[in-house]
Amino acid sequence: MYAPPGVRTNPNMAVPDRMRAWVLGDPGQLVFTQKPVPVPSRAEVLVRIDAVAICATDLEVIAHGPPALIQGGLPFNKDWTPGHEYMGTVAALGPGVDEFGIGDRVTVEIHAGCGQCKRCRMGMYTSCLNYGLNYGEVDKGHRANGFTTDGGFAEYAVNNINTLIRIADAMSDEEATLVVTAGTAMYGLTELGGLVAGESVVVIGPGPIGLLGVAVAKALGASPVILTGTREARLQKGLELGADHVVNVTKQDAVEAVRRLVDGKGVDYVIECSGAANAINEAGRMLNRGGKICLAAFPHEPVPVDVAHLVRNNIYVYGIRGEGKSATHRAEAFMRAKRFDATKIHTHTFPLAELPEALRYARDRVEDAIKVVVKTR
Amino acid sequence: MYAPPGVRTNPNMAVPDRMRAWVLGDPGQLVFTQKPVPVPSRAEVLVRIDAVAICATDLEVIAHGPPALIQGGLPFNKDWTPGHEYMGTVAALGPGVDEFGIGDRVTVEIHAGCGQCKRCRMGMYTSCLNYGLNYGEVDKGHRANGFTTDGGFAEYAVNNINTLIRIADAMSDEEATLVVTAGTAMYGLTELGGLVAGESVVVIGPGPIGLLGVAVAKALGASPVILTGTREARLQKGLELGADHVVNVTKQDAVEAVRRLVDGKGVDYVIECSGAANAINEAGRMLNRGGKICLAAFPHEPVPVDVAHLVRNNIYVYGIRGEGKSATHRAEAFMRAKRFDATKIHTHTFPLAELPEALRYARDRVEDAIKVVVKTR
Amino acid sequence: MYAPPGVRTNPNMAVPDRMRAWVLGDPGQLVFTQKPVPVPSRAEVLVRIDAVAICATDLEVIAHGPPALIQGGLPFNKDWTPGHEYMGTVAALGPGVDEFGIGDRVTVEIHAGCGQCKRCRMGMYTSCLNYGLNYGEVDKGHRANGFTTDGGFAEYAVNNINTLIRIADAMSDEEATLVVTAGTAMYGLTELGGLVAGESVVVIGPGPIGLLGVAVAKALGASPVILTGTREARLQKGLELGADHVVNVTKQDAVEAVRRLVDGKGVDYVIECSGAANAINEAGRMLNRGGKICLAAFPHEPVPVDVAHLVRNNIYVYGIRGEGKSATHRAEAFMRAKRFDATKIHTHTFPLAELPEALRYARDRVEDAIKVVVKTR
Amino acid sequence: MYAPPGVRTNPNMAVPDRMRAWVLGDPGQLVFTQKPVPVPSRAEVLVRIDAVAICATDLEVIAHGPPALIQGGLPFNKDWTPGHEYMGTVAALGPGVDEFGIGDRVTVEIHAGCGQCKRCRMGMYTSCLNYGLNYGEVDKGHRANGFTTDGGFAEYAVNNINTLIRIADAMSDEEATLVVTAGTAMYGLTELGGLVAGESVVVIGPGPIGLLGVAVAKALGASPVILTGTREARLQKGLELGADHVVNVTKQDAVEAVRRLVDGKGVDYVIECSGAANAINEAGRMLNRGGKICLAAFPHEPVPVDVAHLVRNNIYVYGIRGEGKSATHRAEAFMRAKRFDATKIHTHTFPLAELPEALRYARDRVEDAIKVVVKTR
Repeated sequence: MYAPPGVRTNPNMAVPDRMRAWVLGDPGQLVFTQKPVPVPSRAEVLVRIDAVAICATDLEVIAHGPPALIQGGLPFNKDWTPGHEYMGTVAALGPGVDEFGIGDRVTVEIHAGCGQCKRCRMGMYTSCLNYGLNYGEVDKGHRANGFTTDGGFAEYAVNNINTLIRIADAMSDEEATLVVTAGTAMYGLTELGGLVAGESVVVIGPGPIGLLGVAVAKALGASPVILTGTREARLQKGLELGADHVVNVTKQDAVEAVRRLVDGKGVDYVIECSGAANAINEAGRMLNRGGKICLAAFPHEPVPVDVAHLVRNNIYVYGIRGEGKSATHRAEAFMRAKRFDATKIHTHTFPLAELPEALRYARDRVEDAIKVVVKTR
Repeated sequence: MYAPPGVRTNPNMAVPDRMRAWVLGDPGQLVFTQKPVPVPSRAEVLVRIDAVAICATDLEVIAHGPPALIQGGLPFNKDWTPGHEYMGTVAALGPGVDEFGIGDRVTVEIHAGCGQCKRCRMGMYTSCLNYGLNYGEVDKGHRANGFTTDGGFAEYAVNNINTLIRIADAMSDEEATLVVTAGTAMYGLTELGGLVAGESVVVIGPGPIGLLGVAVAKALGASPVILTGTREARLQKGLELGADHVVNVTKQDAVEAVRRLVDGKGVDYVIECSGAANAINEAGRMLNRGGKICLAAFPHEPVPVDVAHLVRNNIYVYGIRGEGKSATHRAEAFMRAKRFDATKIHTHTFPLAELPEALRYARDRVEDAIKVVVKTR
Repeated sequence: MYAPPGVRTNPNMAVPDRMRAWVLGDPGQLVFTQKPVPVPSRAEVLVRIDAVAICATDLEVIAHGPPALIQGGLPFNKDWTPGHEYMGTVAALGPGVDEFGIGDRVTVEIHAGCGQCKRCRMGMYTSCLNYGLNYGEVDKGHRANGFTTDGGFAEYAVNNINTLIRIADAMSDEEATLVVTAGTAMYGLTELGGLVAGESVVVIGPGPIGLLGVAVAKALGASPVILTGTREARLQKGLELGADHVVNVTKQDAVEAVRRLVDGKGVDYVIECSGAANAINEAGRMLNRGGKICLAAFPHEPVPVDVAHLVRNNIYVYGIRGEGKSATHRAEAFMRAKRFDATKIHTHTFPLAELPEALRYARDRVEDAIKVVVKTR
Repeated sequence: MYAPPGVRTNPNMAVPDRMRAWVLGDPGQLVFTQKPVPVPSRAEVLVRIDAVAICATDLEVIAHGPPALIQGGLPFNKDWTPGHEYMGTVAALGPGVDEFGIGDRVTVEIHAGCGQCKRCRMGMYTSCLNYGLNYGEVDKGHRANGFTTDGGFAEYAVNNINTLIRIADAMSDEEATLVVTAGTAMYGLTELGGLVAGESVVVIGPGPIGLLGVAVAKALGASPVILTGTREARLQKGLELGADHVVNVTKQDAVEAVRRLVDGKGVDYVIECSGAANAINEAGRMLNRGGKICLAAFPHEPVPVDVAHLVRNNIYVYGIRGEGKSATHRAEAFMRAKRFDATKIHTHTFPLAELPEALRYARDRVEDAIKVVVKTR
């Protein structure tokens, strides 16, 4: 029976000692196994995972390791559980936690900063300078569940209370897994200026972040919201989520089409979610002078960029990482108020035991999969 | 005798009807000629030009036309007077002007926005959406003296009062011509966050903006301030202007050297003033996570950029144009208080009649020229 | 026939030479008369007024003169036309104007700044330092229609294009008169931080700005939104406009009730729209530490304020004036998107000739009047 | 011998088991006693205190208890050590700390936030919503040394690493105790806008924060900086610290004098450090439209405030608490660079054993005492 010292539990919500979890060994090797239910410390809770969505980054992490670590020269992290877009129910409380109660339904964001570095002190916890310094000899307290610490492809996970977002009773488990995706788009719009009501926004790339980027921009009052992409079905989803216009770039020039839609004036903001090689240059040419670009995706290799155009036009470019500045809370507020229906991008559901098949659907876009959700219960 | 209707003059400061001025014909063809002294309208004054500095952009404008216009497909502007880094004495007042008096010593910034577009309404007058729309059929009121309207290689110029900065009696004419250069660096630091006291700053490229960027960063309390470049003499100037460290990139790897100077942690801000092809990538690798880059210069052709690095590290890139957000006033305040000696970058002086020789010194860096100043009196 | 030199008109929209207008003589003395249709200058248009709403400030202006002028020691302005919450149709274009076309439906905001003072240069045009300096000897270009220049209780008015907001075909004339009221609330929320999604907001005082403050806060995603007031009918309107809770302060202690609604934690923002003597103190006690108050109303006499409480709790207080920072555009965007129905506060309509009766309804709240609209056509 | 488990010490800097410390019993009752040297936990270090300055708030805390607690209804905190403006040498490291080394000279700021509440997540750690929740049953991790946890009137103290600021070798112990005072002024200027170069600033009240407020404003480039007060000697100190003008309000009307100094235009910022009953109203009348007031002091009773003036003039009022947003680091950077000489306000020094006498000097301003420093070694 799970009863670690200092941890509060509740007989109405019994927690087993061991749980089922997917564990990553060498690159690409996920094993479904049993391991101990983890124990929350100070400012942490145990979350019983009810559902977890699959993100393109999960596929990358499983195949190659977390990008920031690999890039930083750290070794491939082994023998841990990936998965970061999960939601569930608070099942046990670490010492001193009274911000949440057992039984509370929550969804999560990924990053808990160390709280001590310069960025954390500024509230920029997703840019924590101690990112990844939580295994090995030194633990600075940083957590990026599903990246550097155990994540959501399991029955339970430990979360810092900073990573929890309460959800309404009326929000389904599946919808709740999408909060962090909407929160990433919200973070981008926050950094672009936040006050986007009445401003023109282009979203490049109708992947999950792009589609919810359309929805969030619209909820914030942006007008018009223009979505560009290559697949009609995805563009159609964009219209359902609030896009005023869509541009199929296989049929027309993206920059020309956008500028025509705004009477040649250029738009105020572009959110780049495609990772295409030329996207940043196209974004620059869609903008009016003084406009701003948010990069929520990127090509993996260096690409030619027309830097002169950016400088001559006083364009600012924001490379965003994650879901910073409590943006998930703002996204959840709009979802709670039914300003948009994020579940339009949820296409498939699998049980936990079938994670590999769920990953295949997500990776290969089987049956036009957008968001694939794994139910743990 | 100069006495246009509605314009106030003062007998103590007689203004002739005609003046000497350099006029640009076809690309590269400057002619020294006579033309009427211009007439200030509402919210404008006539400035008697006392000195004017030469900027690298002047060389470009004379050879190719203003970059923003050429890029925007507008024709090469002919039969006007370039020169934008000038200072002088208020010689006549347009209707209703009481903000300045005849005899006031002033230096100038370049841009007066239209006051009506979205950017001007936000205070972003250097990003005026009506840039250049001041000749031809429609005059929206935008002025960029020395770019789209007559500038300072002449004895007189008309300036919107928004472009004037009062200077102290103790500031020499030559020093005053440098305010707008310091103001450009100040604008960059403003956009990077403004509160740079105690933060680490790298300046790439010891040209005039870079060198005064070092001085302004230091005046704002940045620490350490590191300057990178290829020429020892220029790096030496950087030390005189307040750099804590200089890095000669012909002798050591710029990124490694910078990171070593800050104990491997990366710096908070980089101001890129070199226009080198790889500068943005090097800047990205000099920064810590969450750091920021200001681009005050740029390569003329598209260059390979490691966009992935920027996004993964939550790096923001600010392409700045000109001297926005009243930054010249902040720069002048520090210069007035003698926080740095901008005249250290003033190397040569010529009379107005010898402008071509002055331009040659600036272009070819004859005798290690940095800032070449033309005295009109 | 109206055809001033330099002004473009359109035969489809003939403009008479003279118009009917209410003119203010001595305090309280409004006369319905005929006067010439005014002529737009550069960056101005002639607006045919279709509807105008009555604001509490109109009542004050008519009785005592514009508050800022009276307070600043300027004399009571005579022989002009008040009224500032109007909308209409563009009827003629000043020289060079191509931003609007004849026939465009528009609503207006009040302030056009001088464009030259420090505040205007920062984009703070409602805080123009040349406020009121547009009659008498010096015209600095500032306009506050209905306060210092002719306003909307007439058939036509001249407006700087900066004061125009395009409206959708689907928006009724009556609704369009309410944009500037919603814009004032939007300005307040902008200054409080803008990112209010998921944050808790109290609105004190269910007058027009308060009620639309509820609507705007809700549109921005605030949660919960709590409205306090004394009249049940008004509180009921608040619920219709999106308040999650209302507190009748004649029945319960406002501070206690608010704190109970948010579990004792205090709210993030308070918008004070009552002008009650103790409102600022109550606001301070409703807030959590680090919270913010927007003052959109005020008592006319000095009141006791517990300054110690504000300082000890790091509370910031924003006294807002008007509808700054293009907030009307953001408000219009939400209204265009039907995020709230501002017409719920429109209760009565009168023809232009019956302005005095309309003013009486507004002043005495006859038949529970909230917003009284005067139709000029 | 001091060697708690998990704590790193260094034989070169031996730490005793027990130390001398002043302990507060009932209000006003300070006893000089012996108690155990405290033990740092995760993210904490042990500081050997070398010097501590006396703040007016210390006098209040000793006499009445910490203001925020008393005000919040919490009981008078007993049996602990006050004193919050201290500096010293790192003497031992808590588990995992490598940000500092034993022997590092540091000064301190007061607040370490809980890191979990909404304000801490935003970087507003001095407005931590769990302020004071660190004794009794629940410890949320908040620390305010010298207010709610043991402070600096002792030989040793434990500090969260977030509260430490490295100091230069060249900075004396006495000067280092003044960093947090300068940091409070810097926080105020940060919140007022930060970019104060060339802006006009009035400081009301030449106490320690006011005097260093003058110095910090000047270091940031403000011009002019005007100091108002009643005592000539203090105003003289203000001139030495960089004030361009001083106004003795016993001899002239403060508002009139200030407006005359800025040609009737009003100033941009006022920092109120006097706590005088009418200071906020005078500040409002010193400002131009759109100006801002920082309240760094306050009257203890409610005072009449002309709220109407604030609203009509779009004035914002910032009640600041402590030394937020890492402002101490910015202050230290300017002090390190010798931009001002904070020691000009250090007037008296006493050994630790004579704390009561030191307090008397501070309280009664014996021999014109400004800052009284207690040396612990």
